[in-house]
Order: sequence, then structure tokens, then C-alpha cells
Amino acid sequence: MHDIIIYDTTLRDGNQAEDVNLSLEDKIKITLKLDELGIAYIEGGWPGASPVDTAFFKEIATCGLKTARIAAFGSTHHPTNSAANDKTLAALIASNASTLTIVGKSAEVHVREALRVTPDRYLDVVGDSVSCLKRAGREVIFDAEHFFDGFADNPDFSLAVLKKALEAGADVLVLCDTNGGTLPQDVAKAVRRIREYLPGTTLGIHSHNDCELAVATSLAAVEAGAVMVQGSVNGIGERCGNANLCSLIPILELKSGGAYRCLPEGRLTLLCGVSNYVAEVANMAPFSRQPFVGRSAFAHKGGIHVSAVNRNATLYEHIPPSTVGNEQRVLLTELAGRGNIVSMARRFGFHLDKDEPVVKGLLSELKDKASHGYDYAAAEASVELLLLRKLGRRGVRDFFHLIRFRVLESKQHNDARPLSEATVTLAVEGATEHTAAFGDGPVNALDSALRKALSGFYPRLQEMRLIDFKVRVLAATDQYKGTGSLVRVLIESADQRSKWVTVGVSCNIIEASWQALIDSVTYKLYKDENENCTKKLDG
Amino acid sequence: MHDIIIYDTTLRDGNQAEDVNLSLEDKIKITLKLDELGIAYIEGGWPGASPVDTAFFKEIATCGLKTARIAAFGSTHHPTNSAANDKTLAALIASNASTLTIVGKSAEVHVREALRVTPDRYLDVVGDSVSCLKRAGREVIFDAEHFFDGFADNPDFSLAVLKKALEAGADVLVLCDTNGGTLPQDVAKAVRRIREYLPGTTLGIHSHNDCELAVATSLAAVEAGAVMVQGSVNGIGERCGNANLCSLIPILELKSGGAYRCLPEGRLTLLCGVSNYVAEVANMAPFSRQPFVGRSAFAHKGGIHVSAVNRNATLYEHIPPSTVGNEQRVLLTELAGRGNIVSMARRFGFHLDKDEPVVKGLLSELKDKASHGYDYAAAEASVELLLLRKLGRRGVRDFFHLIRFRVLESKQHNDARPLSEATVTLAVEGATEHTAAFGDGPVNALDSALRKALSGFYPRLQEMRLIDFKVRVLAATDQYKGTGSLVRVLIESADQRSKWVTVGVSCNIIEASWQALIDSVTYKLYKDENENCTKKLDG
Repeated sequence: MHDIIIYDTTLRDGNQAEDVNLSLEDKIKITLKLDELGIAYIEGGWPGASPVDTAFFKEIATCGLKTARIAAFGSTHHPTNSAANDKTLAALIASNASTLTIVGKSAEVHVREALRVTPDRYLDVVGDSVSCLKRAGREVIFDAEHFFDGFADNPDFSLAVLKKALEAGADVLVLCDTNGGTLPQDVAKAVRRIREYLPGTTLGIHSHNDCELAVATSLAAVEAGAVMVQGSVNGIGERCGNANLCSLIPILELKSGGAYRCLPEGRLTLLCGVSNYVAEVANMAPFSRQPFVGRSAFAHKGGIHVSAVNRNATLYEHIPPSTVGNEQRVLLTELAGRGNIVSMARRFGFHLDKDEPVVKGLLSELKDKASHGYDYAAAEASVELLLLRKLGRRGVRDFFHLIRFRVLESKQHNDARPLSEATVTLAVEGATEHTAAFGDGPVNALDSALRKALSGFYPRLQEMRLIDFKVRVLAATDQYKGTGSLVRVLIESADQRSKWVTVGVSCNIIEASWQALIDSVTYKLYKDENENCTKKLDG
Repeated sequence: MHDIIIYDTTLRDGNQAEDVNLSLEDKIKITLKLDELGIAYIEGGWPGASPVDTAFFKEIATCGLKTARIAAFGSTHHPTNSAANDKTLAALIASNASTLTIVGKSAEVHVREALRVTPDRYLDVVGDSVSCLKRAGREVIFDAEHFFDGFADNPDFSLAVLKKALEAGADVLVLCDTNGGTLPQDVAKAVRRIREYLPGTTLGIHSHNDCELAVATSLAAVEAGAVMVQGSVNGIGERCGNANLCSLIPILELKSGGAYRCLPEGRLTLLCGVSNYVAEVANMAPFSRQPFVGRSAFAHKGGIHVSAVNRNATLYEHIPPSTVGNEQRVLLTELAGRGNIVSMARRFGFHLDKDEPVVKGLLSELKDKASHGYDYAAAEASVELLLLRKLGRRGVRDFFHLIRFRVLESKQHNDARPLSEATVTLAVEGATEHTAAFGDGPVNALDSALRKALSGFYPRLQEMRLIDFKVRVLAATDQYKGTGSLVRVLIESADQRSKWVTVGVSCNIIEASWQALIDSVTYKLYKDENENCTKKLDG
């Protein structure tokens, strides 16, 4: 087994993604998390390029990292300067990072067209830049930009750049597929060629995902002998992103027959948590289909799959989800079979047999509602309530009855804000409660009135917040079309301990929202009562 | 150059993605679009498994596709049946699709554990199933499920399954990496082995993306001799999805040095449009970092990149974006922004100069509204009205003024249908019109009342229909959250001659719908008046 050196660039190349903009605090948080995971190198940014990046290196030095090394990123010196009087190199040294990574051009056309100097002059720039940083006593990583494009075009120049950097003292040479256009077999060929040309050199790979091949090209480079892999958490980065460490690390650790190790023993189970944490801090919606760590990565929807997974999970799972900290989920849809019902019930704590009549009844009710647009795969709390009611379990009583609601929306003149008011009359615990509320829109007014009416009876409802509200207009049918189309509402709610999603469907958005709202409130009340019962039973 | 046969499974395996649930209309729309793109095979679904899938094959037969072949999907017959009395095979034949694709197990452990029959019995099942479909005169594609896992474990059985299917008459054998856990080099090895074992057979590949390698394994299979590639638009599918055709097709066509062709000449530029269209119909947020077709795929953010790209785009772009119908985007500067306004105005028939003050005013108004969620890229009729008003052009007068609207929504008891009623008071052509209407939901009631109030004055409004109504809840902010989140409404309207889309944004869905509705009606009235003027001038 040999170690693959993981070099994370989430904070630098990742931050160049279109929708990412990390603050100093974000960068520190992510660094601490990556250190916990056991990432070897963390590239913090480009000192001098922005105040956040400059401040990062000062701040992180005080954080007492456990094992991660911090790298500062920059470039070879400007061709019109000397190394000694170049601001970029000076800022790198001033960052006090023990590892300095500089990007240098290794494609002749870039030297001529972007830098507008001769190849010979640029070789001196490379040598002088590396020497200057080495004289400052630092580890130096040389990122050879556009290496593969350059190597395909004029291999002599690209190899000369690598040789120059190595002779000047670079500790690692990293081959960059900067534009992300290179295929895996071409990456492998180039890596093998360099190992012949510069035997014994420590080589790294830096891939971009413009062909959806960044993971594949990184693996091809490792197979050909590269030992450092640069990438980012969740694959974020410039344009289509960088090689995704959340995929590369588990592939290398779990699928090499024990040939490679990337993280300290026992850390791989933290991966899913790190992925979610970075998405959260960067304020990005997690990508549900993301391999290994995504919410859907081990979610089974097709009926055949589900019945097989119930027998033996390995039949439809390429690894046990828990090895990367993820979990199996079985989804319920129109495509579902009785197996879906059984495994869903098991998750809610009920043991049902596939042949019990209640299973068949539940399946046909769920399929019928699914065909009318109820998205039970997303709204697990609504499914749980349906199941509990069908099984006649104690605990899901009707906590309240609707007597009447009215919502009044009015607007005067085009430029005025409309006014939304709702009244609700409920029968609750033997009493009749009649109240009213205004709101930001009709659904918000109804939501406020409902909670107002119930809060005196069920004070723990105040713990509950609505954290997401989604509306989808379902495809129009002959019966429902245009502004009268069927609408599906999904509401995600949370209290201190958990989150749950409920659903409603109607051609009337207020009615659809009402269904999802009352499921959400009922679920909270049921959960609280049930918790109390369990506590009593446990006690 | 040889042809790679593209087999699209967006409607079947794609529909098994967690957040996808295609209706019959959605499936028909997507099929027509894929036919335009020139996809060779389109797998429509599993006849008999759901009413939508069964109806699809009837409906699509009447649509007059240009070149695409429709495939129906199913499985080998149930081991307790014979082929002749099996419902699945009967439903496949009854679908009347000219191509029938059946999945069969090709891993011994699945036969024993999921099906619970002996390997020998299952070989008979495979042979009988294929023969039965061939006797019905159809092309048969055999999807060998879990092929690579089975081949690694017990290659003899996996090869025997393939041989049996081939001898029974299967036209194509497709090797499935069902769990998505196989690495590219192992796929290549297996494909080469089968080509030795069954020379001359037409082989296909069906990959899943559980290791973020579905594109890479598909390419490896093609390099090793597979000629059919199964995948989906945007890579949607069960768990982490299928091989992404939006990446595979351009890689094969653009990066093989002319070795492969997937689409008819000239169609590749449609790819980006097809990707967006499918995301739209499936109601999925497009993935901005998606290779080739994503919004960020050719977006340049890093300072070095932008300055180099302005000199020579190929320096930081692996292909010209236009080859796949995408475009370069550079972080919006004020200058680039004014250019956008000028070119937009030109599209609506106005010649503006970049330095006119009105351009600057329009730019800042559009940027401001866009930052509040107005999606002007989608709602061009709303942009055109804004532009016309700002330019003070004749024709966009205010055809009516709102004096007041009220919408009353009421519901009695949980099981009753709610009642929606709207009243509208308008000042129109010097008169005051006050009327009321019921509707399917509050927006529909308001829509009906508005048209009722106007129809006496503008009879041509009766030509206008609302053909689509979309609602998206925008990300919650500190100010707007939960049921009070900002909501964007897009309304598509049509008359005999054209279609137009308008937009409204508010935390109140009725207000947002009202904005989009009045823009829609105003646009129709403006269009009609303008047409009359033009006719008079022409005459």
C-alpha cells in the first residue's frame, strides 16, 4: 500500500466557481473541517490577490491544525520583473505558509500569446521563481499549467519547463489539465513519458471537469505513477469545477484492492459530513445525485431494485453506504412495489409482511395518490402519517378539526401592495377556536392563523419552523389547465431535533398548501406525543 | 469514421431519479425533442408497469417521429411462468414498439439470491424470453444486468447468459454496470474478452455514475469495441444517475479525431437547447457546472483567465462553446452589460447606441429587477414591454387601470373542496367595469374575472389562451422565508399566431400571478394594435 497525497484546493480553485464566494470565516471553518478529515494539504488562497486571502494565512497560523499543511498559491514572477523584486513572490513568502505552490505556463502557445515572451526567457522565469522560494526555506510545488495541451502541441518545451522547475529545487511537479479537455488515456501516456524523462520525481495531477472526466483523468494519472492528487470538495471550481475529492478519495481507498491510502485510518466515514458541511458553508444547494455522498447516492426507486435490496443490500449497492458516512434510502413512487412498503414501514419501526392485506391496500392508495401528483419520495412525513393512520396506530389522532377557513386577498391600484388576511375556525380539544391573521401572501396568512389558533393548546408548536416551501405546477391536463393547473406544494419543517417534509396537491394553491401545512403540524404534534410515550415506556 | 448508436433512457432510467416524475405529456415532449436532435433510440418506459408508460407507446405512435426508433423496456419472463403466459413479455409485444429491450440477470449471485432459481433454469428463461420476442418480429436488445460484477465473480455464467441471448436471436447485447461501481480499465478488459468470445456481436454499454465515472467507463467500452451507448440527458437516473449523453456525445464527436459519429451532421449545436429543455420539462434546476451545456461551462471568473480569454478564447476553452450551442460568459462588467441591452433592443427592432442615457437606465433597472428574481431570460414579452415603456414608444398605452381586486377563498371541513371567488374593478376606455368570477383556485378565479371585465372592450382577448403556468419559490432570504418566500410566476400565453411569456415576482403568489397576467394581456393588446398600424402603413 502506498500513500496518495491529497491536496485540497476548495478554498482557491473552488472559490473560482461562478456561485461561490467564501468569506474569511468560511475559509477558516472549512480548513478546520478538512484538517479533521485528515487532508494532507489545504491550499488557502492567493496572498496579495484579495484581502480575504491575505488575512487567511495570518489567521490560520493561530488555529492549531492537527496534521494538515497549509499551502499558499501564486504564480511565477512577472516576466518584466526579476524574482527578487516581484510582488507575487514576495507576498507568497510573507504569507509564512510552509508550502508555496506556484503556477507556471508549460504550453508554448500560452507563453507566446498570453505572456508575450520567448520560450527561453520564460524558462529563466521558472527557474528564478522556484529558486527564490526555495532560498526562503519553503517546500515548493510547481503547478504546470496547460501541461497536457502543451505536451500534445510541443512536448519539448513542456518537458523543458518541468526540468527547469525540478533543477531549481521544486519538490513536486503537478501536471494541470487546466482547460479540462484531455482524455484519460492521454493523461496516462504523458505521465508515463515524464516518469521516463525525469525518473524519481514526485508527480501530481490537477484536473478540471469540462469533459465530466476529472475523476477519471486523476485516476489514470495515479495508475501511471502520480502520487499527489489536487481537487476540491464536491468538485467545485472554475467553469465545470475541479476533480471531486469526495469521489476520488473513496475510489482510491475502497476500489484499489488496498493499493492506496489517502486519509488516516478511520476517517473515510467523515466524508459525507464534510461534503454537506462545505455545501452549507459555501451556501450551495447540495447536489442530490452526487456520487458517494449525495442524498440520492443510495436511494432506491425502481421496484425490482427495492425488492432485491430488501434481501441483500449489496445486490444494488456498490459499497456499503456507511463506509463514507451515507445511508440507504428506499423511495416510494408510482413505480413502487410491495417491497417498498415493507422497507418503509421497517424504517418507521413496524414489521410488516409483504403478503399482509394492509400492505396491498397501502400500496394501491399510495400509487393512486402518486399518480395524482403526490410526491411521496420527497415527502416522507406525509407517508409516515398515512401509514400510521392505515395501521390504526395509537398516537396519530386528529389533533384538531377544521370548521372553516377563509382567505381574503385585496388590492387597490396597480402600484399598491395587496393585503392578505386569513380567518380560521378550528375544533381543538373540545373547544372552538376562531382567529385571524395577516400575512405576506395568502398562504403565509393562513399559516399564521393556523398556528395562532393552535398555539394555546399545543405550546410546543412554537419550536417548529417552516424552512422550505416549494411549489410545482404539474403538467396541465384536459381537466386542469392554465391558471387552474394542478399544483404540488412541498413544505419542509424543522424543530431543534429533526426536519420533515410534507406534501399537498390541488388545482388550488391555497388548498394544496393547507394539506401540506396540516400534515406538517400534525407530524410535529404526533412526534412530540410519541416521544413522551417512549420516554415513559423507557422509564 | 464509424457510427456510435446512441440509445437514450431519459424517459425510463432517467425517470427513476429521485426528483424526476415525468407525466405522459412530459414524455411526449421530450421524445419529440430527442428526435429533432437525431438520437437513434428512445426508450419510452416499461409498458404495463404504470398507466403513463402504457399510454406512452400508443400516443407516440401517432406523433410521426422523423428518425428515432422507440424502444419499450421490460425484463425476462418470471421464472415461475413460461414465456408464452408471462404478462411482462405480453405487455412488451402489445406496446407495438419495433424495438424491445429486456433486462436479464447476468450475475450468478443475483440469479440465486434475487430470483431464487438455479443458473441453469435462468439460462432457459433468457433463451425463451428472447425467442418469444423475436417470434413476434421485433428487434431485441438484451440488457445484461450487473454484467461487470458478475463477470468479476463468475465469468463463465455471465458469458453463458450472453451466449444464450445471442443464440436466441438478440440483436444487441448491452453490458450494464448496474451498480456503477466498475472502473474504466475493468470495463475495457471485459469488453475485449467478450469480443474474443462472441466475435461479430453488436455490443453496447449502460453505465451508472456512482463513482463519477459513467462517462469514462462508456468511453472505455467504446474504445474496446462497443458500438451502442445507453445514457440519459443531463445524466439523470436511478441513484447517482446514468451516463450523461450531454457529455458523451460531444466527446465522441469532437475529441476522437473524427473516429466516431453519434448524431446526423449539424445537430450537435442543438445539444445545449435539448439539455435545458429536458431540465425545464422535468422541472429540475439546471446544474450550472454541467460540462459542455451548463451555464458555467464556459464562464470565466478568474482574473488571469478573463484577460487571456479576451485575447484568444482557445487559451482557456477546450472547445468553441458554439459547437454545442453554448456560449462564453465573462463576469458581467458594466460595459458588457450595455452591449447586452443594445443587442436585445436590436432583436425587438430598435437601434440604440451604447452611449445613449436610456441604455444605462435600462441596464440598471433590469439588473435591479433581475437581482429580485425576475427571470428576463425566460420572459421576453415582459422585457419587451419594459423596453417599449422606457423608450416611450407609441402602442404600449395602458389599456386599463386596476381600481380594486379581491379574492375570497373559503373552505368548510377538511374534506370539502374550497371555493374561490374573485371580484375585479377596472377603469377601461373611460368606463368603470366591475365584475366577479369563480375559479379552480384563487389565481384562476382572478384570471377569469380579469378577462370577463375586459372582453366587452377588447373582443380579440378571446383568441388568447394561457398555455403554461409555472411557479418557482425563490431562495428564502432573511426578509422572505417559509410560506412568505419570494415566488416567481411565469405565464406562457398564445393566440393563433404566436406565443409569449411574462413574469411576476412577489412574496404573494396572487400578486406575482397578477403581474404576469396583466403583462400577458397588455402584450396581446399591444401586439394586436401594432399589427393593425403596420397593416395600415403597409397599405
